[in-house]
Amino acid sequence: MDMTALIADLVGIRLEQNDKIIQQKSRDFYWYSPVLKRQLDHVTGDLVASPRTEEELIRVLKACYAHDIPVTPRGTGTGNYGQAMPLSGGLVLSLADMNEIREISPGRVICGPGVICSDLDKATRAHSSQEMRMHPSTYHTATVGGFIAGGSGGVGSINWGGLRDFGNVIRLRVVTMEEEPQILELTGEDLHKVTHAYGTNGIITEVEMPLAPAYDWVDAIVGFDSFDDATLYANALARQDGILTKLITVVAAPCPFDYFKRHQKFLTEGQSVVLVMVAPHSHDAFKAFTARHSGEVVFDASMVEDLKGLPPVFELAWNHTTLRALRVDPAWTYLQSLYPFPNQIELAAKMERMFPGEMISHLEFVRFDGDITCFGLPLIRFTTEERLDEIVELHHANGCPVFNPHRFTLEEGGMKQTDEIQLAFKRQADPKGLLNPGKMIAWDDPDYDFGSGETWLFKGLKQAS
Amino acid sequence: MDMTALIADLVGIRLEQNDKIIQQKSRDFYWYSPVLKRQLDHVTGDLVASPRTEEELIRVLKACYAHDIPVTPRGTGTGNYGQAMPLSGGLVLSLADMNEIREISPGRVICGPGVICSDLDKATRAHSSQEMRMHPSTYHTATVGGFIAGGSGGVGSINWGGLRDFGNVIRLRVVTMEEEPQILELTGEDLHKVTHAYGTNGIITEVEMPLAPAYDWVDAIVGFDSFDDATLYANALARQDGILTKLITVVAAPCPFDYFKRHQKFLTEGQSVVLVMVAPHSHDAFKAFTARHSGEVVFDASMVEDLKGLPPVFELAWNHTTLRALRVDPAWTYLQSLYPFPNQIELAAKMERMFPGEMISHLEFVRFDGDITCFGLPLIRFTTEERLDEIVELHHANGCPVFNPHRFTLEEGGMKQTDEIQLAFKRQADPKGLLNPGKMIAWDDPDYDFGSGETWLFKGLKQAS
Repeated sequence: MDMTALIADLVGIRLEQNDKIIQQKSRDFYWYSPVLKRQLDHVTGDLVASPRTEEELIRVLKACYAHDIPVTPRGTGTGNYGQAMPLSGGLVLSLADMNEIREISPGRVICGPGVICSDLDKATRAHSSQEMRMHPSTYHTATVGGFIAGGSGGVGSINWGGLRDFGNVIRLRVVTMEEEPQILELTGEDLHKVTHAYGTNGIITEVEMPLAPAYDWVDAIVGFDSFDDATLYANALARQDGILTKLITVVAAPCPFDYFKRHQKFLTEGQSVVLVMVAPHSHDAFKAFTARHSGEVVFDASMVEDLKGLPPVFELAWNHTTLRALRVDPAWTYLQSLYPFPNQIELAAKMERMFPGEMISHLEFVRFDGDITCFGLPLIRFTTEERLDEIVELHHANGCPVFNPHRFTLEEGGMKQTDEIQLAFKRQADPKGLLNPGKMIAWDDPDYDFGSGETWLFKGLKQAS
Repeated sequence: MDMTALIADLVGIRLEQNDKIIQQKSRDFYWYSPVLKRQLDHVTGDLVASPRTEEELIRVLKACYAHDIPVTPRGTGTGNYGQAMPLSGGLVLSLADMNEIREISPGRVICGPGVICSDLDKATRAHSSQEMRMHPSTYHTATVGGFIAGGSGGVGSINWGGLRDFGNVIRLRVVTMEEEPQILELTGEDLHKVTHAYGTNGIITEVEMPLAPAYDWVDAIVGFDSFDDATLYANALARQDGILTKLITVVAAPCPFDYFKRHQKFLTEGQSVVLVMVAPHSHDAFKAFTARHSGEVVFDASMVEDLKGLPPVFELAWNHTTLRALRVDPAWTYLQSLYPFPNQIELAAKMERMFPGEMISHLEFVRFDGDITCFGLPLIRFTTEERLDEIVELHHANGCPVFNPHRFTLEEGGMKQTDEIQLAFKRQADPKGLLNPGKMIAWDDPDYDFGSGETWLFKGLKQAS
C-alpha cells in the first residue's frame, strides 16, 4: 500500500499518523470477546483520516480508490463485533467530525453521521422536547451513524423495535466507493442496503431519523427473590400498553449485587432485578402495577435525594451489563440471543437452568416484529472456545437464535446467510471491494457454506508483524 | 319525585325545564340499536342541571340526595349504549359546563370533565404539541369525562390499548352521592372503581390524563380487491413497530363505496379498504411497506390539493362507520366484538363468510393486553331481535366475545359478570342507589343469573305516559 502517495493526495484533510493513536482508533469493544481478542488484538490501520465535510470525504474516498487502499469507516468505535476494525489495515475513516445537526422538526432530525447520541438528544430536547427513539447503552459516546451502520437497537426498542424496522431510519445519504463516487439518497425499502452493513458498501454522510417525545424518564429497580418472578413481571410490564417505559431489563442474581457497585446500597444479595425507565406520567401506574405483582421497588430515582455518582439505569443494561461484570471479573464474556415470542418466558427459564455457575441471565425486553419478547445478553464464564461454541449450539438447539458476538463477519454475527440486497449493493457501490474488507463473507468467499459450522477465516486479515 | 322542592333548592344553578330540550338532553346514540330504540325511545328526565363548578355540583347532589331524586350524569351524550339516559327519569346532570383546562405539562393535562376532546387537543397542541393518547370518533362533540365514564378506547388505541389499561387515565377527582358528598382523588388501582361505570357510583369533577405527542397525522385509504387481503395488510401494518400510526381500520366492501359518500370519488366499487392515520415522519416507511404488500393507496391526504368537504378518516371509522351506513340505509345496525389474538385473521375471515348479505365486516386494530389484534364493529342488517341475538350467539360460539350494544346495562354490554370493585364502590359512594339507576344489574338484582341468556329488565324503567 502506497501510503505516502495517499497522504500526499490528502493535503488539508485532518490525518492522524501516530501509531499509538492509530491503533486506538482501530479498535472497538471487540475485547468483550476472548475469541475476537485473540483474533483481532493486533489489528491496526495505517492512517486515520477525519473529513469534516462530504467534499473532504469524497476526496478521501477517491484517493483511496486510486491507490487501492482499504477504507474502514467508523464513528467512535463503541461496537462489540469488531465492526470498525480495519482487518486489512489501510485507512481508518473517522466520521466523528461530520457532526453537524442540520434540521430539527416535529418527529425528525437531520444530522451528520458523527453526532454523539446524547449530543443529538440534547439539541432536540432543547429545540422541541424530542429525543431519539432508541439509543445504545453507549449513549454518551456512540455516534448516530455508527449506531445505524453497526447497531441493531437498544434503549427504546421496547417501544419501537429495532433499527432494521421500517420507519426507524427515515433517510440516509450515502457516498459510494467508485472512481467517481456517487451520492445516493436512500429511503424506504432501499435503506436496508446499508443499515447494519458495517460500512461495507457505502459511507453514510447524512442521516434523517425519527424522533420521539423526550420525557424526564424515571429510573427504577424492582427486586425479586427469583429470576422467574422477575421475568414474569418484566414481561407483564412490557405488555402494559398504557404504561410508557423506555427500558425493561432483567438481570439475574448474583450480577446486580456483585457488579452494579454504585447501586449496591440499594440492592440485596441474591436478588434478581428488573431495571426500568418509566415516563413520569406513567409513574403512578407503574407503582400500582408493580404492587399488584408483589414487586419491591428497591430503587426509585424520583425518591432518592442524592443521585450523585449513580449512573443512569440504562448504563446497567444492554452491553453495559457485560461491561460492569467484566470490570469486576474479567473471566466473564457474553452472548446475544433471542427468545422468540410466544415462548420467551419458558425459554429464558430453561436456559437459566442449563448452565449453572457458567451463565448469568440477562434479558432485554423489546418489540420484535409486532410482539413483545426479549433478547438475551447473558454473561458467560469463559473457559474454552470449544465450550463457548457448545453453549451457542445449545441455544440454537433449544430454539434461541444467537447473534454470535464472537465472530467479526456480518453473516456469522447475524443471520448466518448471505444478505443478497447488501451484497448486490456492494457490487455496485464498492466494485474494488475496498470498504471494510473481511466483514462480508458473501463478497470474499461466495461459495462459503454457512452450514459448515466452521468459523470463517478472512485470508486478507493482516497478520501481526 | 318532588321536582318543585328540588328546583327551589337549586337557585343560581343553570337549569333546563323545557320538555323538548330535556328530552334531547336525555338521549345518546342509543338509536343505532333497534332494540334500545324500542326499549328507551320514551325515556326522558324531568330536569337538566348544568353546574359550572364543583361547589355547584355538590349542591345539586345534596339536594337530589335529600329529595331522593335519581341523577344521571352525562357529557354530551355521544355514547351508543344508552349510558347517559335517565331510565327512571329524575335529574339529568350535564357536566358539559365544567370544561376548564387547568394545567398542561409534559405528558399530562388536568381539566374538567366537560371539555370536548378536540378542544382539549387544540389547547394541548398550542401549548406544547401534545394531544390525547386516544379519542372516540366523536372527537368534535364528545367530552373527556364522558369518554372515561362511558367509553373504552378509539382512535389511538392502536398505540396505547384502552382506557381500562393502567396509565391511560392518571387521576380522577370524584364526588360521591352521600348525605355529605365526599371528594375523592383516585389514582392507580383505584381508578377502576369509576372508569367505564357509566357514572353509577360517583361523579367525575376533574380528570388528569396522559398526553402523547401531536403530529399532523396523514389520512390515507388503501384499497384491496379482497377483504382477506385488506385484513392481512392491516394486521401486518399494525405489527410494524417502527411505523407510527394512530388508526388502522378495515372496512369491507360494499360499505366504503356505498356509504363513504364524500370520499366516493377516490374509491372503487367492490373494494375493501384500510383506513390509516400515519405520522408524517412515518409516511415514507408506510408507502414502502404498502408497496411491498401490493396495497394501492387510493387516497393520500398529503397528495390531495383540495381537502374541502372531506371528513378526516377517523370520521369513517369506529362508530362513525355505522353512522355513515345508517344515514344511507336505516336498516343497518351493528355489533361490537373482539377477535382475540393470535387468531384474529382467521376469525375475521370466518365471521365475514358466515352472514352473507347480512353483515359487512369492520375491524379496528388495537393493542389489547400487549398484543396486536382487532375489535369488530360489523354492520348488521336488522331483521328481528331474535336473529340479532342469534348472530351474537354465533360470535360467542366461535370465540369472538361480543360487547352487546343492544343492551343498556354495564354487565350485558360488557363482560357479562358482576364487577365487584365497581359494585363495592357504589355501596359506599351511592348508598341510596340514586346514580344512573338501572345500569348496574349487580346493584338492582344481586341474584341475577348472567348465564340465563335472557335480557335483563329494569323494573325501575319509567314507562311512557
